[in-house]
Amino acid sequence: MNRIITVSREFGSGGRELGRRLAERLGFEYYDNEIIKQIADHTSFSEEYIRQIIEGKTHRLYPITINNSFSYISDSHAQMVSTVYEAQAQVLRELAELSDCVIVGRCADYLLRDYKPFRIFVYASLESRMQRCMARGDGENLSESELRKMIRRIDRNRARYYGDCTGQSWGEKENYDLCINTSGREIKDLIPHLEHLL
Amino acid sequence: MNRIITVSREFGSGGRELGRRLAERLGFEYYDNEIIKQIADHTSFSEEYIRQIIEGKTHRLYPITINNSFSYISDSHAQMVSTVYEAQAQVLRELAELSDCVIVGRCADYLLRDYKPFRIFVYASLESRMQRCMARGDGENLSESELRKMIRRIDRNRARYYGDCTGQSWGEKENYDLCINTSGREIKDLIPHLEHLL
Repeated sequence: MNRIITVSREFGSGGRELGRRLAERLGFEYYDNEIIKQIADHTSFSEEYIRQIIEGKTHRLYPITINNSFSYISDSHAQMVSTVYEAQAQVLRELAELSDCVIVGRCADYLLRDYKPFRIFVYASLESRMQRCMARGDGENLSESELRKMIRRIDRNRARYYGDCTGQSWGEKENYDLCINTSGREIKDLIPHLEHLL
Repeated sequence: MNRIITVSREFGSGGRELGRRLAERLGFEYYDNEIIKQIADHTSFSEEYIRQIIEGKTHRLYPITINNSFSYISDSHAQMVSTVYEAQAQVLRELAELSDCVIVGRCADYLLRDYKPFRIFVYASLESRMQRCMARGDGENLSESELRKMIRRIDRNRARYYGDCTGQSWGEKENYDLCINTSGREIKDLIPHLEHLL
C-alpha cells in the first residue's frame, strides 16, 4: 500500500507550505488545488462551484455549468453537494492508489482512512497566523481587524465543511497523529526532522 | 535561560516514558514524582495529601501532617489547596532555574510559561492506552471494563486539577507546541527524531 500523508491546517498556519516541502523532501506526489480540477472532471460541475462547496461557502442559488450552458439551481442543492463529496472521495482514492503522496485538505484524513494515512494537523496562534498572512500578502488590502475576521471566517467554513463531510470535529487532536503549533516557527526548519516521525 | 520541556499526558499514553527517554537523550534533568516531595518540604503537608490534591481527588476531610502530628481538616480546604498550588509553582521555578530539564505533569506548561517551555501533550486512543496499561501491569487485577473506568477517572481528575490550577482546558492543543498520538507506536522509536523538533 502506498504511503499517504494528509495535512489539515488552520488558515495562515503554514500548513500548505509544510505539506509541499514535506512532499519535496520525501519525493512524494503533492496534491492540493489540482484535486478540484479532477473532481470537476468526474462531475458536471464547474471548478468554481466545487471550490465553493469544498470551502464550505455554497449558497442555495449558484450558477453551475451543465453541458457547457449556465443555469441556476435551488432545489437539489443537497444532492449536488453529495455528488461533489462522492466525487471527491473517488478522486482521493484514485490518487492514493497511484503513488506515495501528500494531500493537503479535502477531508483526506477521513476519506482515505482505509489507507491508514499519517494525519497531520497544523495550527498556530491567531497573531502568528496574521503575521504569516501579511508576510505572504494574503489580504494585503485589509485592515488588521478585517484580516482577523477573514481568517476566522475561512476556518469556520473549513470546520463546517469537514464536519458535514466526515461527522467529526475539525482540528480535534484525536483525529490526527501529530498536531504541530507553528507559532513563531519557520516551516522549512521543521521538515528535516518531521519526516522521521511519520 | 535554561531549556525547559514540559510533558502533559493522558493516562496510559506513554507520556511519562516519553519524558524520561527524552531527558536521557538530551542529557537534561528529569522531574516527576520527586516534585511532590519538594512541595512537602515547602509546606506542612504530607506527601500523600499533596498527591491527592495534585491528582485532583482531594476530599474535604483528609488527614494531614502538621508539626509531625495528624489532624483532620474541613473548613480551610480551599486555602490548603491554594497553598499547595503556590508551593508547586515555587518548586517548579526553582527547578527551572537550576538546569535544563524535562518536567512531566504538575501544570508545568502553564506555571513555567515565563520560561517559554516547549510544551508536549501525549495522547492515544482509549484502546491503545488500555493495551499499554495491561502491558506494564497497571490495574492488573481489574477487568477490562474496570480498567477503562479507571483510565477515564484518572484523566477526569487530571483535567479538573489542571483547569482549577491554570484556568485553561487540559489537552486543548492550543496550549501545547506539539501533540503526539502514540496509538500503536513505540515510544523509544519516537525519541531520536523528536529532539530535533523542540
